Amino acid sequence: MAARKLIIDTDPGQDDAFAILMALGAREALEVLGITTCAGNIPLALTQRNARQVLELAGRPDIPVFAGCPRPMVKALETAERVHGDSGLDGCDLPQPTMPLQSEHAVAWMIRTLMAAAEGEITVCTLGPMTNLAVAMVMEPRIVPRIREVVLMGGGFFEGGNTTPAAEFNIYVDPHAAHTVFTSGVPLTMVPIDCTYQAKMTPEWLSELRGLGTQTAVQAAGMAEFYQRYGNEKFGVTDYCLHDPCVIGYLLAPHLFEGRDCHVAIELQSPKTIGMTIVDWWNVTKLAPNCRVLKKLDNSAFYELMLEKISCLP
Amino acid sequence: MAARKLIIDTDPGQDDAFAILMALGAREALEVLGITTCAGNIPLALTQRNARQVLELAGRPDIPVFAGCPRPMVKALETAERVHGDSGLDGCDLPQPTMPLQSEHAVAWMIRTLMAAAEGEITVCTLGPMTNLAVAMVMEPRIVPRIREVVLMGGGFFEGGNTTPAAEFNIYVDPHAAHTVFTSGVPLTMVPIDCTYQAKMTPEWLSELRGLGTQTAVQAAGMAEFYQRYGNEKFGVTDYCLHDPCVIGYLLAPHLFEGRDCHVAIELQSPKTIGMTIVDWWNVTKLAPNCRVLKKLDNSAFYELMLEKISCLP
Amino acid sequence: MAARKLIIDTDPGQDDAFAILMALGAREALEVLGITTCAGNIPLALTQRNARQVLELAGRPDIPVFAGCPRPMVKALETAERVHGDSGLDGCDLPQPTMPLQSEHAVAWMIRTLMAAAEGEITVCTLGPMTNLAVAMVMEPRIVPRIREVVLMGGGFFEGGNTTPAAEFNIYVDPHAAHTVFTSGVPLTMVPIDCTYQAKMTPEWLSELRGLGTQTAVQAAGMAEFYQRYGNEKFGVTDYCLHDPCVIGYLLAPHLFEGRDCHVAIELQSPKTIGMTIVDWWNVTKLAPNCRVLKKLDNSAFYELMLEKISCLP
Amino acid sequence: MAARKLIIDTDPGQDDAFAILMALGAREALEVLGITTCAGNIPLALTQRNARQVLELAGRPDIPVFAGCPRPMVKALETAERVHGDSGLDGCDLPQPTMPLQSEHAVAWMIRTLMAAAEGEITVCTLGPMTNLAVAMVMEPRIVPRIREVVLMGGGFFEGGNTTPAAEFNIYVDPHAAHTVFTSGVPLTMVPIDCTYQAKMTPEWLSELRGLGTQTAVQAAGMAEFYQRYGNEKFGVTDYCLHDPCVIGYLLAPHLFEGRDCHVAIELQSPKTIGMTIVDWWNVTKLAPNCRVLKKLDNSAFYELMLEKISCLP
Repeated sequence: MAARKLIIDTDPGQDDAFAILMALGAREALEVLGITTCAGNIPLALTQRNARQVLELAGRPDIPVFAGCPRPMVKALETAERVHGDSGLDGCDLPQPTMPLQSEHAVAWMIRTLMAAAEGEITVCTLGPMTNLAVAMVMEPRIVPRIREVVLMGGGFFEGGNTTPAAEFNIYVDPHAAHTVFTSGVPLTMVPIDCTYQAKMTPEWLSELRGLGTQTAVQAAGMAEFYQRYGNEKFGVTDYCLHDPCVIGYLLAPHLFEGRDCHVAIELQSPKTIGMTIVDWWNVTKLAPNCRVLKKLDNSAFYELMLEKISCLP
Repeated sequence: MAARKLIIDTDPGQDDAFAILMALGAREALEVLGITTCAGNIPLALTQRNARQVLELAGRPDIPVFAGCPRPMVKALETAERVHGDSGLDGCDLPQPTMPLQSEHAVAWMIRTLMAAAEGEITVCTLGPMTNLAVAMVMEPRIVPRIREVVLMGGGFFEGGNTTPAAEFNIYVDPHAAHTVFTSGVPLTMVPIDCTYQAKMTPEWLSELRGLGTQTAVQAAGMAEFYQRYGNEKFGVTDYCLHDPCVIGYLLAPHLFEGRDCHVAIELQSPKTIGMTIVDWWNVTKLAPNCRVLKKLDNSAFYELMLEKISCLP
Repeated sequence: MAARKLIIDTDPGQDDAFAILMALGAREALEVLGITTCAGNIPLALTQRNARQVLELAGRPDIPVFAGCPRPMVKALETAERVHGDSGLDGCDLPQPTMPLQSEHAVAWMIRTLMAAAEGEITVCTLGPMTNLAVAMVMEPRIVPRIREVVLMGGGFFEGGNTTPAAEFNIYVDPHAAHTVFTSGVPLTMVPIDCTYQAKMTPEWLSELRGLGTQTAVQAAGMAEFYQRYGNEKFGVTDYCLHDPCVIGYLLAPHLFEGRDCHVAIELQSPKTIGMTIVDWWNVTKLAPNCRVLKKLDNSAFYELMLEKISCLP
Repeated sequence: MAARKLIIDTDPGQDDAFAILMALGAREALEVLGITTCAGNIPLALTQRNARQVLELAGRPDIPVFAGCPRPMVKALETAERVHGDSGLDGCDLPQPTMPLQSEHAVAWMIRTLMAAAEGEITVCTLGPMTNLAVAMVMEPRIVPRIREVVLMGGGFFEGGNTTPAAEFNIYVDPHAAHTVFTSGVPLTMVPIDCTYQAKMTPEWLSELRGLGTQTAVQAAGMAEFYQRYGNEKFGVTDYCLHDPCVIGYLLAPHLFEGRDCHVAIELQSPKTIGMTIVDWWNVTKLAPNCRVLKKLDNSAFYELMLEKISCLP
C-alpha cells in the first residue's frame, strides 16, 4: 500500500517535534509532503525555524517548510513560552538550520497542493491553532473535498481546558479558525486533552529513548526532560504527556484509540468560555456529528510505537 | 448540640423526595424549619403538592410548605416530565395531601424567617432551580449574612451537562438565579453531577430499603424503581443515581465527601453553553473562590447513612 | 369618566419628581394608588425618601410609598449621582419627610394590589430600572392580565444610548428585569430617549414655572436648574430634557405623541451592548410587536400641559 | 500632484458600479491599481464578472480584476439578490466581458502589491464585506503600514441597520473580517448608512445622467432605475440612495463630508446584534478613536461631482 500523503501544520513546541519525528520515522506509512507553520506556542518566526531544525535533526531537509499566518483570524495572538521555553524547543541543543524556508506562503502552498490533488488524497494534521487551514478554506473552499481527513490535536471537554477553565490552548488561540474548519464539512478527527492526558510518559520510556543513542533520540530526550520540568501541575497533570504525537499515533494505529462521532461546536460568543469545544457526547442536541472525538488510548502500545518510529531516524 | 436549622427549597421529584426523607429522618441533627417549593422538574402546582405528600408520608405535617416562584427569573420555564413522570413522583402511590399549603409566598417567608434569625443561623438547601433564593436576595440582600451556608444540588463540569452538552438541569432552568446567588458572597457548597453520578444505588440497597417494610420505605422504593426505568442512558448514566440526597448527606457527614474551594462562574451569555457552571478547578483565572465544589463521595457509606435515616421514619 | 388607576414605580431623581408632580396635578384623570421605589439614579434609601418629600411638597402624604428592591436582578447596581447630585434631588430644598415609609415591600404590595384588581384595571408606570415589576411578575405571573398597560421611560435606538454607546440608563441598570417585562405579554408602551430628547425645556417655560409662585413650582424650578447644569453634553444633549414626565404626558394626552408598534428585544448577551433596546422599527425580523415605541412628541403642547398640571398643586 | 493609488475591493452591485465609474472618471486624482472582488451582494462568480463588465463599459480593460474569497471568514455567506437582482447588475444590458479574470487570488495580489509599495502609498476602498482585506492582514500583517487609509462603505448606528434591526449588510455578512480590520491599527474612514441615506438621487439628476448620452451614462441610468424599484421601503428609505460612490466622493472631495473620530467596535457576540458597528460618538468608553465616522454629506455637490466624473467616460 502506498504511504498516506500528509501535510503537517504545526507550531513546534517540544511535543510537536515528537509528532514530526514520529511521522518521519513511519516512512512506509506516511509521506510528509510539507510542513506548514503557524503562530501558537511561540511566534511564527520561531516555529518555522524550529520545524527546519527538527527536519535536519532527522535527516530530512528535503521536506519543504512554509511559514503561514503570524496571527489568528480574529483575536490577538497569545503564546505559551511559559510551557515551551523562549525558543519553543528548550531542552535540546540544535544548530541553526541551513535548509531554506520556502518563499511561498503556507496558505498559498496548501491551496495549490490540495487543488492539484485528487479527491480525498491528502490528509492534513494540525498540531497548533488552525489558522492556516481555516484561511485556506476561506480563500478556496474547493480544497475541502480534496482533503481525506483533518486530524487535529486540540480541544477538551471532560477534562475542562488547559488555558482557561474551559478552553484548551490550540483552540483558544484561534477559536474562529477552529469554527471555520469544524463547520466546513471536512472529515474531522479531534484528539483532545481528554485523550492526550492519558498519554503519560514513564521514566522507563524516557530512559529507553535516550538509550537508543541516536542524535534524534538524544535530542528528543532532552526536549522531553525540559517539558517535564514545567510540570503543568496547575491543570493537575503531574505526569509528562506528549499531546501532539497522539495525532500521528492515531494515523498509524487507529485501533489503539477509542472515540465517538459527535457534534462539536466551538464557543465563540462567551468571554468566559471562548475556545471551548462543546462536545455533544450524548447527542442531546440531535445535531449531526461533524467530528470523531477520541477519548481513550492504549498508552503503553502508543509509546512503544513512538519509540519504534523514532528509532528509525538517524 | 442543637440541631442545625434548615430551609429546604425543592421541586420534588423523586430524588428530592429522598433528600427530604433523609433530612426528616435525621431529626437529632437537622431541624427543618419549612419547605419552599419552586418550578423545575415539574410545574409549581405539582411540586408544592408533592412536598406535602412527602411530609405526610413521613408523619411530619407540622412542617410548613410554601409555594414560591412559578417561573425562572429571566428565561421561560422548561420542565423534565420525561425524567420524573407527569406527577413528578411517579412510582409511588400517595394520597392527596390534607395538610394545607401556606398562604404566604415562599420568598416572603424565606425573607421573614431569615431576617428574624441571627447571623449565620440558618442553612438553606436548594434541590432545584435557585429562583426563590435569588429573588429573596434581590428583594432583601440583608438576608445574605443570616445564611450559614447554601448547599445546592446543581451544576457539573468534568461530567459535562445532563440537559445540554454543557449544562445541568437545575442551573440550566434558571441560570440567572444561580448567578445572583453565586455572586452574592454567601458561603456556598455545590454538589454537582460530577459528584452525584457516583451516588449509584445498587439493587441490594434497594432491596434493603424495601425490606424495612415501613410505609415510607415502601413508597420510596417505588419511586426509586420508576426513576431507574428512565435510565438516563443518554448521558451515560445507566445506574440509578440519587442526586439530591447528596446535599443532605453532606450536611450530616461532610467527611464522606471530597471537594475543593473554587471560583465558579455561571455562563449567561452563550446560547450554546448557557447554564454551564464554569469551575476554575485549577485556579487559572486567579479569581477568589466563591464555592466549595464537591467531586467525590464514599458511596457505600452514603447509602448506608441514607438507609439509617429513612429507617427512623414511620 | 373615572380617573385611571396608576402605580408609579420610580427612583427620584429630578425628572422623576416632575413626572410625579404632573400625575398628582392631573387628579381628574389619574388616581395614584401608590408609589413604589427602586434603586437606580441613586440608592433605594434615597429614592424612597425623595418620593415622600415630593408627595409632601404636593400636599399628598395620603399616597403610600413603598421601598422595593435595592439592587437589580442579576447585575450589580450602578447609580448616576453624576447626573442627579448626591441626594438625587439636588437643586431643591425640601425638609425631611414626616409621612412614614410603608413597611410592606413594594413588590409584595404591587402583587397584592394587582391581584385584588379586575382584569386590565391598573396601569403601571416605570420611571427607573424595572426591577420591582419584573420581580413581581416572576413571583406571581398572574398579575400580568390585571395590568392595563405598562408605560415606561427607558431605552433608545436611533439616538444610541446615554450610558454606554448603545444603552440607556434605566434599561442598562437592570436589563434582565426589562427582558422579563418585555417578554411577559403585558401591553407595553416605551418612551425612549429617541422621544424624550425632543422634550426640551425652554428658559421661557422655566420662568413661567417659577412665576407660578407656588411652593411646588418654586422647588420644581430649582430642581430643573440643577439638572440643567449637568448639561449632559457628552451625549449631545445640550438642552434640558425632562425624560420621565413624558410618560405622564402620554397617559394624559396620547395624541401629542407619535410612535409605532414594534418588536423590541433587550440585549443581554453582549458586554458591549448589554441593555440596548433592539427596536425592530421596520419589522425585518417578522417577530410580532410587543411594544408601542414612541418617537415624536409635540413639545410645546407637552410643556404647556405639564405647567397646567403643576399649577394645580399647592 | 500625482494621482492617489487605489485598490477597490468590491461586490458589484449597482451602487458599486457607480463607485467604480466615478473613480475611473477621476483619472487625474485616482489611479486604480486593480479591482479585487468578494462575495457579498451576490456570489463571487458574478461579482468578478460584473467588475469586468463595468471596466469594459468604461473603456478600461487594462485594469486587472481579481477574484477573492468566495465566503466570509467565519459565518456562512448570505447574499442580497432581493436588492440587486439575480445578476447583481440588473437594469443594465452589458455583454459578457472579454477581458480576462486574473489568475492570481485577490488576497495574494493585494499582499504582493502592498508589500512592494512604500509606507502609506496605497489607499484601499472596500465597498462590500471586508473579507479580502482582513484575510490579507491575517496572512501578512506587515501590509498594514503600507496602507495610506482604508475607506469603507458599511455600518450604521443612528439609522440602525439595513439587514437586521441593528446591522448593515456589508458588516453583517462578515463581521469578523470587519473586526480584524477595525482592530488592525490601519487609518480608517467609515461611510455608514447614517451618511449614505442622505445621498438621495433626484429624478432630475437621473434625467441629467441619462441625458449625457454616453454608453456609460445610459447603462448607469438603467441600473439606477432598477435599484430604485426595490424601494427599500422596509428600512424607510423611499428615495434612491447610492451608497458606495460616497466612498469615492469622500476621496475626491472630503470637504463635502462631515464626521468625527470615534472608537468603533464590531459586535461579534450577540446573535441579535451581530455585525452592528458600535460607534462611541460621545466617547463615553474613553477608548481611543480607531475610525473616522462620516455622518453628513453635501448631497447636491456630491451628485454634481459624480455626474462630472461619469461624464468623462465613453
